[in-house]
Amino acid sequence: MIYLDNAATTKPSENAIAAANSAFSDFGNPSSLHRIGLDAERILKDARCAVAEKLSADEKNIFFTSGGTESNNTAILGYCLKNQKRGKHLITTEIEHPSVLEAFKYLEKQGFSVTYLGVTKEGSISLSEFENALSEDTLLVSVMAVNNETGVIQPIDKLKDIMRKKSPKAVLHSDCVQAFLKIPLFPKKWGIDMLSASGHKIHALKGTGFLYIAENINIEPIIRGGGQERGIRSGTENTAGIAALSAAVKKFDGIKTDIRTEFADKIVKSIPDVTVNGTGENSGYILNVSFSGIKAEILLHSLEARGIFVSTGSACSSNKPQPSHVLAAMGVSRKDIDGAIRFSFSGEGFDSDYVVSVLAEEVAKIRKYVR
Amino acid sequence: MIYLDNAATTKPSENAIAAANSAFSDFGNPSSLHRIGLDAERILKDARCAVAEKLSADEKNIFFTSGGTESNNTAILGYCLKNQKRGKHLITTEIEHPSVLEAFKYLEKQGFSVTYLGVTKEGSISLSEFENALSEDTLLVSVMAVNNETGVIQPIDKLKDIMRKKSPKAVLHSDCVQAFLKIPLFPKKWGIDMLSASGHKIHALKGTGFLYIAENINIEPIIRGGGQERGIRSGTENTAGIAALSAAVKKFDGIKTDIRTEFADKIVKSIPDVTVNGTGENSGYILNVSFSGIKAEILLHSLEARGIFVSTGSACSSNKPQPSHVLAAMGVSRKDIDGAIRFSFSGEGFDSDYVVSVLAEEVAKIRKYVR
Repeated sequence: MIYLDNAATTKPSENAIAAANSAFSDFGNPSSLHRIGLDAERILKDARCAVAEKLSADEKNIFFTSGGTESNNTAILGYCLKNQKRGKHLITTEIEHPSVLEAFKYLEKQGFSVTYLGVTKEGSISLSEFENALSEDTLLVSVMAVNNETGVIQPIDKLKDIMRKKSPKAVLHSDCVQAFLKIPLFPKKWGIDMLSASGHKIHALKGTGFLYIAENINIEPIIRGGGQERGIRSGTENTAGIAALSAAVKKFDGIKTDIRTEFADKIVKSIPDVTVNGTGENSGYILNVSFSGIKAEILLHSLEARGIFVSTGSACSSNKPQPSHVLAAMGVSRKDIDGAIRFSFSGEGFDSDYVVSVLAEEVAKIRKYVR
Repeated sequence: MIYLDNAATTKPSENAIAAANSAFSDFGNPSSLHRIGLDAERILKDARCAVAEKLSADEKNIFFTSGGTESNNTAILGYCLKNQKRGKHLITTEIEHPSVLEAFKYLEKQGFSVTYLGVTKEGSISLSEFENALSEDTLLVSVMAVNNETGVIQPIDKLKDIMRKKSPKAVLHSDCVQAFLKIPLFPKKWGIDMLSASGHKIHALKGTGFLYIAENINIEPIIRGGGQERGIRSGTENTAGIAALSAAVKKFDGIKTDIRTEFADKIVKSIPDVTVNGTGENSGYILNVSFSGIKAEILLHSLEARGIFVSTGSACSSNKPQPSHVLAAMGVSRKDIDGAIRFSFSGEGFDSDYVVSVLAEEVAKIRKYVR
């Protein structure tokens, strides 16, 4: 089995699994006053420090959630609903994950106006378009760090300087679900006020994630109750999931060589009529390729039959299959969107020569059949 | 170690842990189109059926969440915000869990009016008071099935009949976090429209739970995104947690004999000046006792030093220590509230003679010291 769908989810690492199992034994409720509760509370503190360190942040800025989707919703809805008297204009991009886009759609119904920035054919927003979109009424900007379908890096390090000039009161959120540990992230230095990430994209478990929140940022929680996570996110903490997140964060072993570029070059050389989608600066973890004249889902299942697992677009949208909004925003033709496959990598290498040879065979077979 | 804090959280069962570990291997994203995704999707279906069966419900009524707190918030906020044109009056009780009470407090700020039903000294709401509170404008009623501090059962089986007469449009939600699998629950028969439960109270894992939603009940999700759980709860599903929930539900081994009554009798016979709080019909899993003249937290730590783990009030509120709102609603004196200990049980028996003898010694020691 060659698993190239790591942007959808990753295999939990051995040390993450060991940490979760250890927490199944230290099973206390972190809110309990006795030692078994304190042992569980200690898991949270250790994990908060581990995550904070990777962001050059303080542990008090880290709030655990049930995942990237909840983190994005908490940041965007929580900030905008709390601070709506300060402005009603919001900015995001056309290529965000549904958990960001759906939050903005909800806010539009609540009377906010939203500017959706387009992207270049390389897959990145334009800073001049961004600057033009800012106004005195802009309350929040949300731009993802790495796109989940193409891997293209967005210039989140440059946004706050522009915002300070034109919209000094606006805050900046970034969905870093595909970026955390995969590209350098310096929220404090870059002026990122809120940053979302997920556990299961970095070899920890599904059902865990966190939200970084800078000092002086007030949000309305979306889940209320016992006041856990300093009131930002109530509910008994998922200690085993958080322990696994901590272990995975500490041991995360990124990609060492540029396997994406090497793999892309081999595909382009071996298979005619292919296009790499998103030629902008890349995280190195995602490669999106259109195979002209092919229905991606057919190719996906052909590859699956040979033990190679890939994706068409993003897994998160596959409940409601529709043409990729990301590739459409980049101006990719409908035909090429329909033939687009996402390969996504982990630190573990794979036999790219073998995958390319299988790809070449299967693509040729399908094209022969279709023509 | 004798762990009598099972209302705060339970030890994951061996089969729940095994199921989680198996899901760490079947690690796919249920939304992925390939086989690894389908294997993960199968975990969800199996768990949905297992949970539904215990409620005599259909799998399509079960929606997985990150836990009881999220389930309560989703039900209450999700229904009220979606349907507010149909009524602005809500009814709940003074003895609900913070995840219910805080949701209602938020709705009050949004212009809803809320009736908080008091309880008798036995710890239960009064049906005549409930009937009087209902009006044509009542949109939603939320009453817990089993109180988390006393174990007292509320008459949730009788509410809908009364509602049909006076508030035919109102819907009924019940927080069943302390009730699921512990007392019989028939949501369909009893007319319960929404029912919340949690995994970690029944020997599954923290970070999992579900919401039962009857047909024709429309709610606004509080977490938006990729449309998982049929749009009710977006975000990649916590497959390992859900697998563990399924395993725990299938194997849940409840209390066989009335260990609560036996234990209470022994305490009352062996220790002077004690009062059992909540003498109404009980789930059998929780015993709340006031030790007159004692500060509960001191007794908790004395017991802890001897390997016995109990709670003062509920763990979920211990982040912000304040006198139990549940006991206060029952008319317990402030002095007796300060001396109240919650013992909570699992299906595993324990040496109650030993616990009572330690209790008697420690209580006597503290009383001697204080007087």
